[in-house]
Amino acid sequence: MSDILNGVDRQLLFDTVDAVKADSGVAAFKFKVKNRWVDGAENRSTVDDYYGAHEELRYTPAFELVNDEPPKLLGRDSTPNPVEYVLHGLAGCLTTSMVYHAAAQGIEITSVETRFEGDLDLRGFLGLNENVRNGFDEIRVVFDIQGNFEHEVKQDLIAIAQRFSPVLDIVSNGVPVTCRLADAHRNPEATAA
Amino acid sequence: MSDILNGVDRQLLFDTVDAVKADSGVAAFKFKVKNRWVDGAENRSTVDDYYGAHEELRYTPAFELVNDEPPKLLGRDSTPNPVEYVLHGLAGCLTTSMVYHAAAQGIEITSVETRFEGDLDLRGFLGLNENVRNGFDEIRVVFDIQGNFEHEVKQDLIAIAQRFSPVLDIVSNGVPVTCRLADAHRNPEATAA
Repeated sequence: MSDILNGVDRQLLFDTVDAVKADSGVAAFKFKVKNRWVDGAENRSTVDDYYGAHEELRYTPAFELVNDEPPKLLGRDSTPNPVEYVLHGLAGCLTTSMVYHAAAQGIEITSVETRFEGDLDLRGFLGLNENVRNGFDEIRVVFDIQGNFEHEVKQDLIAIAQRFSPVLDIVSNGVPVTCRLADAHRNPEATAA
Repeated sequence: MSDILNGVDRQLLFDTVDAVKADSGVAAFKFKVKNRWVDGAENRSTVDDYYGAHEELRYTPAFELVNDEPPKLLGRDSTPNPVEYVLHGLAGCLTTSMVYHAAAQGIEITSVETRFEGDLDLRGFLGLNENVRNGFDEIRVVFDIQGNFEHEVKQDLIAIAQRFSPVLDIVSNGVPVTCRLADAHRNPEATAA
């Protein structure tokens, strides 16, 4: 008998937890993106593999994502821009964290709708004011959660999303990012791999 | 005569700088995303407007972005996952920051290719170890930059990208994120707006 709640296979989720408890190395994941500049604000990412549960895993076919900027930011308006992709990742991660943990706890959710808004002062990016940061000053999130449960459960679900979401942790607490130049002699295999 | 370098309209860029110098309110932007959960790990974002330069601006048509997870994370493998979208946003933003500022400084770039890798220990998300964070422990970025310039200029370009990128600031320094529940009586206009 299947045990699906909120679209999540609970048995598979509990099996994953057991596998990680037995071997913490199962939990070590690496996510990867390659990007190539096209022109102006346009650049394209390829997402074609990741590492997890002791395996190198391939997406077939690979995913392609495109960045652009709106005309006010000198782009061609063909796709979302980088900060909008970050909000999309944050939205998806908070929602999935809520839905998975609710499934584990036996809470059935009917719908989740969220709205995200981030304030960005362009003086940072333009280098016009050292007291203005480059990124968002603040991000505000509003959740609309529906299900056959009390108001308090909705508050609990938001708390669960905040407690477990990887992207919320990245965006609110920060991550060390190290940047370096590729080796002087370009290695086509390394670029293509 | 047009003054395009690296695909960037330099006159428009300098005009933007002048406009912000004359009125810092021009620099105040708001970026927005709405998201709706579909099932399991699948949820969909709509990006249909933003605010900037004293105007509410609309993308026509609106952009739609979809989150999913790979099978190892109980998804259907149909799109990148939230943390991969964050890496894509980081890639795009570092590249665009480099390309725009290089254009302003008169540096012509031939190509930029980047690779991103982030380490994520699933024990955080699963709530199995309080000493393990939910998000990336570290993100490593490798730049391959080509152009008719010395090696030192490549290092300068990486420094410029790091100095001005909004998403690098968000991801490496963190942003306050406030989460709240929508008002009890759902307002269809607020959701649709």
